[in-house]
Amino acid sequence: MEPNEELDALREQVREVTVEILRDVQRRMELARRIGDVKGRLGIEVKDEKVENEIRSAVLNASDEIGMGRDFALRLLSILLAESESVQHEKRAPTNRPTHLEIFVKAKLLESAGNKMIHMEVGEPDYPPPQAVAKSLSESFKKGRYHYTETRGISELREKLAKKAGVRENRLIVTPGGRFGVFGAIVTLVKPGQELIVIEPAWPAYRESAEFIGARVRILRTRLEDLWHPDPKQLEDLISPATKMIILNYPNNPTGKVIDVKTTNRIVSLARDYGLFLLSDEVYADYTFRRKSQSLLEYNYEKSIVVSSFSKRYAMTGFRVGFCIANTDVIKKISKFQAAGITSVAEPMQYAALAAVGQDYSENIKIVKDRLDFIVHKLRQMSLRFMEPDGGMYVYPEVPYGDDISLVEKLLGKGVAIAPGSGFGESYRKFIRISACRPREELEKGLDVIAEVVEGRQHA
Amino acid sequence: MEPNEELDALREQVREVTVEILRDVQRRMELARRIGDVKGRLGIEVKDEKVENEIRSAVLNASDEIGMGRDFALRLLSILLAESESVQHEKRAPTNRPTHLEIFVKAKLLESAGNKMIHMEVGEPDYPPPQAVAKSLSESFKKGRYHYTETRGISELREKLAKKAGVRENRLIVTPGGRFGVFGAIVTLVKPGQELIVIEPAWPAYRESAEFIGARVRILRTRLEDLWHPDPKQLEDLISPATKMIILNYPNNPTGKVIDVKTTNRIVSLARDYGLFLLSDEVYADYTFRRKSQSLLEYNYEKSIVVSSFSKRYAMTGFRVGFCIANTDVIKKISKFQAAGITSVAEPMQYAALAAVGQDYSENIKIVKDRLDFIVHKLRQMSLRFMEPDGGMYVYPEVPYGDDISLVEKLLGKGVAIAPGSGFGESYRKFIRISACRPREELEKGLDVIAEVVEGRQHA
Repeated sequence: MEPNEELDALREQVREVTVEILRDVQRRMELARRIGDVKGRLGIEVKDEKVENEIRSAVLNASDEIGMGRDFALRLLSILLAESESVQHEKRAPTNRPTHLEIFVKAKLLESAGNKMIHMEVGEPDYPPPQAVAKSLSESFKKGRYHYTETRGISELREKLAKKAGVRENRLIVTPGGRFGVFGAIVTLVKPGQELIVIEPAWPAYRESAEFIGARVRILRTRLEDLWHPDPKQLEDLISPATKMIILNYPNNPTGKVIDVKTTNRIVSLARDYGLFLLSDEVYADYTFRRKSQSLLEYNYEKSIVVSSFSKRYAMTGFRVGFCIANTDVIKKISKFQAAGITSVAEPMQYAALAAVGQDYSENIKIVKDRLDFIVHKLRQMSLRFMEPDGGMYVYPEVPYGDDISLVEKLLGKGVAIAPGSGFGESYRKFIRISACRPREELEKGLDVIAEVVEGRQHA
Repeated sequence: MEPNEELDALREQVREVTVEILRDVQRRMELARRIGDVKGRLGIEVKDEKVENEIRSAVLNASDEIGMGRDFALRLLSILLAESESVQHEKRAPTNRPTHLEIFVKAKLLESAGNKMIHMEVGEPDYPPPQAVAKSLSESFKKGRYHYTETRGISELREKLAKKAGVRENRLIVTPGGRFGVFGAIVTLVKPGQELIVIEPAWPAYRESAEFIGARVRILRTRLEDLWHPDPKQLEDLISPATKMIILNYPNNPTGKVIDVKTTNRIVSLARDYGLFLLSDEVYADYTFRRKSQSLLEYNYEKSIVVSSFSKRYAMTGFRVGFCIANTDVIKKISKFQAAGITSVAEPMQYAALAAVGQDYSENIKIVKDRLDFIVHKLRQMSLRFMEPDGGMYVYPEVPYGDDISLVEKLLGKGVAIAPGSGFGESYRKFIRISACRPREELEKGLDVIAEVVEGRQHA
């Protein structure tokens, strides 16, 4: 056959097999719809992890057998699964519950309409950044600090941060807040259809980042009864061939949990054994009270990503500066993503952060500790169940009666903003998060209103 | 049959059909590999848009026939096409050509190693931001402007910008630079496998954003011979059922082209007829000299996204503040993405931008015009072919002999940084971009070095 004829013949076959694939996919959708109907009749949840695991095994076996790459096979499967799920969901109502950030926006709107509001919903310190930052800001114009910088950040800042962390500066990138570090690591390291494991309750950003890229989130649920301890055995059970990353966040937002060294050791071993990325969000690392928190940097684990920030330690939320430490290959990937998205972090903000490094922040830690002690004291009077936080900026009590959202709405109406527990995991609808970022007198007022409402309910 | 048995039977069928799909996909990959071999023998490019269009038509016909959603069918196809392409590419060398930003990084590295460098590679003004910005920066600490803000930006800034643009403030979002507006609009509005049309030569960020999300870029190539005029007829030929967006950027980076009203009218009509998003990157809108540039806002086109920035107009590159204007639905999508990625733009930077709004920037325009005139004058002496720019900050001449990258490298060695033409489109390897962002004396030195090298080559 002439090469050109051969090409035409091959192309014809490609068209045929493509249409064949489409037909099969459509058949699969029909089956999914019928499964959805049966499940509806039986009152079963759409998502079934056991069934998913079975089909994943079948796909991996088939891909090995026919010589298809596992990653590609899993990506295909994930698209099919996502479509099946949405087909099965078609007739059901969406559950769209607000997070702490959405409550913050609502509270701000109520405020701008003239209402007084006690903000106990976000983790934003009320104390100021270090004074050195003020000086840096005043100088930045005169010193011409208003240019694009290297994507990974100005070298002074990178070097100073790297030195403090005991790593080489090429393992560090300065990001617009810790959030962008988390977002960048997830969207560049986890592909559509691959999985990451989140220990709930958890900051919603992990899930949002995963959903944005079409990755799947597997959840390890921890319980107040176990003092929020994540069981490494249960964690291992969640690991599948599609798993790429485990996310840790200790001191934890929202529970204040700090895990013990033994548990951390076991989780690092698991990550090592299965070759998984381990993203450790350590933005609350300085706020530890009853138990020191360990940095994942101590483990020298090749596939770790440590996220940190100026927001909490130095009370610099509004400057949007954070950083990530990982191996150079990971840093290159995040850097490429950051270059595409924002070019670089605003230069005056980088210099402000540089001015803050090394400043004493011990007073901030003391303030938060005192407030948390006070909140704990008040909550005990309400006889609510909760774990006294090991660290962090929050207390996460259980509210025995009713649903978190209706309580949050009711409190908003009374000038108190708190975060609904379900913003940190769908199964925590009986919880609320109270933030220690306002002065004691305000917290007292807010907690009195909470007591009134919660106790009013109990007696109703 | 009992519902539970029915469920099991259906699930068994799902597994079977899934494996069937995998087998067909694998068969398709084999065919692609064989096509790659034949093409290799014939010396044909891997990517063939005509063949792609045929297969796309076949897929759309099949999806209509079997009742599958067109979006889903195209997404499937795109995954198959991407995989085929990479299979066909396997044995070929990658073409990874540097962009202007990479040259900038190289130049900065050379500088920090002690070399003198004339920066004509990036569009970063050397004149300062308005003085009012200095005051705002100095005040920001005292005024407590270091907090999270609403994701769409502080209300004063949104309202002021919206008023100037003649739109309601809920149609505007403040972003970390115009770049994030472009990135956010593309990654939230164009799905994997869908297409967008870019008129080349073009700023590489459009392509990078599309590639990040797995969307496909269709290119309308414009030519110096046509004074970079984009032909609406050719544009229409590129529109397929998978097309979701057309990107405009006038005044253009890198050519300095401003298109005429008639052409804009026709492009807007096309977008309207086919229901496409029209993203208009207008960050150079103020820098027009020979022909006024029209804002897409004038068209009141429902599916337009207008991107603007403080970087060029006010020389505020390093502050990373820009904004997007679109319909409220699009703004909500970009806002959700921005909330997930960065929470909000740094508050001191937003206030700095607020201080800049309304300041006189006419001197900046005059400076750039004078410099462009000077560059044009010098290039004429070198008898290089180019279009005298209608606007923008650059001249984009053709270098008759050799390849842009080797010229750029050679010039870097002589202390002059310019941008390679191919950074704005693979087919522009004979072009270079010269930026007017340095003082005239420096430009003169740089252009003399360029003349020396270019003329040296011509005589070689």
